[in-house]
Amino acid sequence: MAGELESIEKLLENYIPSPELAEVRRILYGKELRKLSLPQSALDVAKQREFQLESYGFDAAKETTRTARIVRVGAIQNKIVEPTTAPITVQREALEKRISEIIEVAAECGVNIICLQEAWNMPFAFCTREKQPWCEFAESIENGPTTSLMKKLAKKYNMVIISPILERDEQHGDVLANTAVVISNTGEVLGKSRKNHIPRVGDFNESTYYMEGDTGHPVFQTQFGRIAINICYGRHHPPNWMMYGINGAEIVFNPSATVGALSEPLWSIEARNAAIANSYFTCGINRVGTEEFPNEFTSADGKPAHKDFGHFYGSSYFAGPDGSRTPGLSRTQDGLIIAEMDLNLCRQVKDKWGFRMTQRLDMYAKELTEAVKPDYQPNIIKEN
Amino acid sequence: MAGELESIEKLLENYIPSPELAEVRRILYGKELRKLSLPQSALDVAKQREFQLESYGFDAAKETTRTARIVRVGAIQNKIVEPTTAPITVQREALEKRISEIIEVAAECGVNIICLQEAWNMPFAFCTREKQPWCEFAESIENGPTTSLMKKLAKKYNMVIISPILERDEQHGDVLANTAVVISNTGEVLGKSRKNHIPRVGDFNESTYYMEGDTGHPVFQTQFGRIAINICYGRHHPPNWMMYGINGAEIVFNPSATVGALSEPLWSIEARNAAIANSYFTCGINRVGTEEFPNEFTSADGKPAHKDFGHFYGSSYFAGPDGSRTPGLSRTQDGLIIAEMDLNLCRQVKDKWGFRMTQRLDMYAKELTEAVKPDYQPNIIKEN
Repeated sequence: MAGELESIEKLLENYIPSPELAEVRRILYGKELRKLSLPQSALDVAKQREFQLESYGFDAAKETTRTARIVRVGAIQNKIVEPTTAPITVQREALEKRISEIIEVAAECGVNIICLQEAWNMPFAFCTREKQPWCEFAESIENGPTTSLMKKLAKKYNMVIISPILERDEQHGDVLANTAVVISNTGEVLGKSRKNHIPRVGDFNESTYYMEGDTGHPVFQTQFGRIAINICYGRHHPPNWMMYGINGAEIVFNPSATVGALSEPLWSIEARNAAIANSYFTCGINRVGTEEFPNEFTSADGKPAHKDFGHFYGSSYFAGPDGSRTPGLSRTQDGLIIAEMDLNLCRQVKDKWGFRMTQRLDMYAKELTEAVKPDYQPNIIKEN
Repeated sequence: MAGELESIEKLLENYIPSPELAEVRRILYGKELRKLSLPQSALDVAKQREFQLESYGFDAAKETTRTARIVRVGAIQNKIVEPTTAPITVQREALEKRISEIIEVAAECGVNIICLQEAWNMPFAFCTREKQPWCEFAESIENGPTTSLMKKLAKKYNMVIISPILERDEQHGDVLANTAVVISNTGEVLGKSRKNHIPRVGDFNESTYYMEGDTGHPVFQTQFGRIAINICYGRHHPPNWMMYGINGAEIVFNPSATVGALSEPLWSIEARNAAIANSYFTCGINRVGTEEFPNEFTSADGKPAHKDFGHFYGSSYFAGPDGSRTPGLSRTQDGLIIAEMDLNLCRQVKDKWGFRMTQRLDMYAKELTEAVKPDYQPNIIKEN
């Protein structure tokens, strides 16, 4: 097979005849999701601007005492636009232009909340371990250029925008953080959520640049629903997902940057497991393409120095609290995935499966409190 | 498509040509696993006794300071043998005979540790809500007939046997529990582990029969490795999986009884996610077949009364700490799945991905301790 596979789901569709295909989908992907009817003009513009546009609907049962709480949620995956050798401002502005074009289409499709990929306004340069020029991408949450632009778009389109960027915390010694800025549809910054778990794996140790987040597990009450952001490597940590659920999240985004050789078999598992375990919607977003850097770097894996980190495999998807999921976006192309969801489904699934009711958090609070003590003795039963 | 699909993995094999199949497997199942070479006599006997026999190897890198820690682990899925109208002892003895036959083959294949399915010596009768005659299947852990037999087999075959049964706790008011008995290869009971999370979902509320387990998260140090048991519905609860990991488990079994309409899209996700998140091996085991009961019962779902709970879809599988997994056993047939694993892989994956090191348990201990207080205020950020 030459080059990168475009999409697992399209491959299955190509080879497996119905009705077997329906059974494969049921077992691997859960309940079949509705396709949305998007405006033809949006589909045309997406084609012209060369990005994939896919959409799905997660339905819930009608209730007597609550009206349906329908929201359209979007996620964007994209390549960098300019080479990494271009001036920082040129690179960033090219990405801002690209994302603005895609957000415009999302608006036409009626998207209420959109989330961009991790560190979306820059290449994912942390594998280089070089501080310059990459630290220059960091900006203040309040008045940086990217946030300023996103505030304008949020207001213009009446859309909540989650903008994960490299933050420069000028109030705390100019340190950096990996931060999602949540911008209300009013155009104001509603708050921020920092990456809680920082990788020291494979090609990079991101704590070369920033430390574990200190914002805890905030949930943002927007006009369209309660949302939270679990950035990238935090998806490997079930308690991280859980705390957003405990704080009331209905949709948790996982903006990421990860490559095939490292994590691809995990990708379809983790965000979906979180949706199931916590009775909320999740959305995994991963960038696409290969980013080549000016200077070579090594990866502590015995292989020769190289200038790229590998292929970011995209495959962004949504998962529902009932275990269903959308197909992934392309493994190779920019894309916008839209999910229309009735947020009533979260509570309906809680009522049905009872995972929250049967969670026994009090037991885990006690056990964890013991387990973190330096003199903790694990509960191990041995032969006499 | 007529009847039940035999296996997703075989269907993919049938339709998808290589090399695409290899890429589909890489993305959906992780690293390709080695096939074991089992004795021909064992393969012949399995065929003759009409059960599927599959085997896979999870390899680890060679280390200088530790020798490889190779262990062969088995899991058995099976139908009931006698109709549910037969006398209790007839039903149980038929199952004991069937399982003894399969364990004999496992022994010939060199299996060191084997786990049976949930409540394996009885039909999964809890959907009926009838106390009689089903409570009669319950037995004392120490001197019940099933445990007595399993102790003999464990000693005979030098095999650790995990025997999940309905326990009668004679020391505590004759109450029942859903309990895995861990029998050492010496033939002695090493201990027990009770089901921590009890479903109130769909066709049944098991707390009609027994309450949440009170044995915490014990890990059993056997001669062949450190093992734990997360029974059935506990697989929906990530902190349950996590505590077994914190206590040092290297293999966690999930003996289950679950049907297609309820949980099948979740099945391949949860035990595998646990293996990834906790850097250990997991094994999901589900019974097969449809069990018809003498009296009809309703399921609180608006449907007419019926006499069976649905099709148990088998599909038992192993998952590794590196995100790889075996194919599932059949969705319709009895089977024995054997995984040879080098337990050194657990620590190697911890070293590589660092999920344990970056787990921030202290943060979660504090947050959970707050979250379980009756006056807890979720961390919700609202518009001004």
